[in-house]
Amino acid sequence: MPSEFSLIARHFTRPTRHTVLGVGDDCAIVAPSAGHELLVSSDMLVAGTHFLPDTDPLRLGWKTAAVNISDIAAMGGTPRWITLALSLPAADEAWIAALAQGFSECCTAFDVDWIGGDTTRGPLNLCATVFGEAPSGQAIRRGGARPGDEVWVSGWPGLAALGLRHLLDGIPLAEDWRAICVDALERPQPRVALGQSLRGIASAMLDVSDGLAGDLGHILNASACGAVLDEAALPLGPALAACNDAARARHCLLAGGDDYELVFTAPPSQRTALQAIAAAHGVPLTRIGACTAQTGLYLRAPDGRVEALAAQGFDHFA
Amino acid sequence: MPSEFSLIARHFTRPTRHTVLGVGDDCAIVAPSAGHELLVSSDMLVAGTHFLPDTDPLRLGWKTAAVNISDIAAMGGTPRWITLALSLPAADEAWIAALAQGFSECCTAFDVDWIGGDTTRGPLNLCATVFGEAPSGQAIRRGGARPGDEVWVSGWPGLAALGLRHLLDGIPLAEDWRAICVDALERPQPRVALGQSLRGIASAMLDVSDGLAGDLGHILNASACGAVLDEAALPLGPALAACNDAARARHCLLAGGDDYELVFTAPPSQRTALQAIAAAHGVPLTRIGACTAQTGLYLRAPDGRVEALAAQGFDHFA
Repeated sequence: MPSEFSLIARHFTRPTRHTVLGVGDDCAIVAPSAGHELLVSSDMLVAGTHFLPDTDPLRLGWKTAAVNISDIAAMGGTPRWITLALSLPAADEAWIAALAQGFSECCTAFDVDWIGGDTTRGPLNLCATVFGEAPSGQAIRRGGARPGDEVWVSGWPGLAALGLRHLLDGIPLAEDWRAICVDALERPQPRVALGQSLRGIASAMLDVSDGLAGDLGHILNASACGAVLDEAALPLGPALAACNDAARARHCLLAGGDDYELVFTAPPSQRTALQAIAAAHGVPLTRIGACTAQTGLYLRAPDGRVEALAAQGFDHFA
Repeated sequence: MPSEFSLIARHFTRPTRHTVLGVGDDCAIVAPSAGHELLVSSDMLVAGTHFLPDTDPLRLGWKTAAVNISDIAAMGGTPRWITLALSLPAADEAWIAALAQGFSECCTAFDVDWIGGDTTRGPLNLCATVFGEAPSGQAIRRGGARPGDEVWVSGWPGLAALGLRHLLDGIPLAEDWRAICVDALERPQPRVALGQSLRGIASAMLDVSDGLAGDLGHILNASACGAVLDEAALPLGPALAACNDAARARHCLLAGGDDYELVFTAPPSQRTALQAIAAAHGVPLTRIGACTAQTGLYLRAPDGRVEALAAQGFDHFA
């Protein structure tokens, strides 16, 4: 087994592009941009809880960076720097090299400098902390939704959950969709550019990490309002095409997590701007409902019946 | 078992004093100070590797914050914000409450705002990331030592290692010193004020986390020079009084980790300034040797014989 210091030197020290001092001292040093606030988020990924123990380490590295970067995207920020602390059993160096490579590739793809971390021995655990910037006062929080605002979601939430069920339980997926669903799970693409373009337009925003209904529920709780979603408006097409099971597709879209799409609210006056943003970024934005003064989250079926949605996101201790 | 969200609300959400947005959104938001650089450090603590599984959770919480804050102290910075991500088995809430309380007490003691983190289920793992500030260009790095600079250390390194040996192996300690040594291990006091006062005076600095010889070795490697320490100058008194065993006291002082004292280098012209700083902070500063152009770390015995010191700090994979 190589030493901790040689592991760090060989795999965890990468060139930086906008950092004063990277890996190798007590602290990394960065120079925050004038006129900006700093956004900070930590995510911890545990083997068996957040990923399958046999996950390809290259993909696991990517995902560890991506889910953190997504938190910056979800506030409309620019991701800038990231640290990775990891606890490893007596792992083989090829595995560590692939993990570091995947993490680094995702950082490079989003122009994020990997500036430090910690390496220790123990049960497999990956903890990344990401730092982004947004012009002062302009980060998009979760508490700004108002009755009358419309609810939007990017992309096609649900595909990652289908990928997970396919890997875990072997549920059948159409051949053309298998890799797409597994990629949505294992190689998510944080919506960084989209998130930035929503500053000044979205009134509240989160990324869909715990499930669309659950994460929208967090927005509604923080904003002290409710929402009604239109079932007919949900972007179900791809999930349905993938699994050919309407109930499962709907469940994965509403309750599946790990998608890292953006769910946000915006006043109706922003519809045209949002169509232009969707076109500019090549990302579908779907208007799926509207906020109400009455609290609670409801789904209106095509026949007009309204049912309460359990707005429970994934809870690690439930 | 309470839910993840109620755990966060009840125990991990504390008042902040200089933060734009704390716990509760995708990211925390802070406003970096103009003219300053941001210092960032992550430390991960794993049960069985970094602390005994039956450690008092109040002390464990304190230590988790303290070892991170010490990294800011070791660069002469002002600690400002911290995140705590933790993975917990199905732990009892009283344990979690005590851990959070200890972490919060240390943060409050050093005026650090606890701004966020992550809470998940898995083997016990604590990962904190701390952010500090220093006037641009003034952080004290490890690579600035020059031949002729003198080597200094604060306080009495070795006491934490004696405390650990006492708890693990039952080595006898003098009654008056037992609590002092265990406190040094479990409730370390990062040298924040001292570190700040060394900006512009110390040419290189680290905190003693892996052992004095090992951490000084990191400074020497980064600075491309060597050093000779004088055995007679080592601040051995307290360790010797505690264990009444000269060889053990010397070993714990040179090779014991977990002390979080500061080891630094400074030109001889700074001796008077350093004496004044020691007096102002009530912290002993001991001049223990000098840097040499020849690389390597050596110890000169009172009889004049010089032996090479294995400059190995603690290596998690050795």
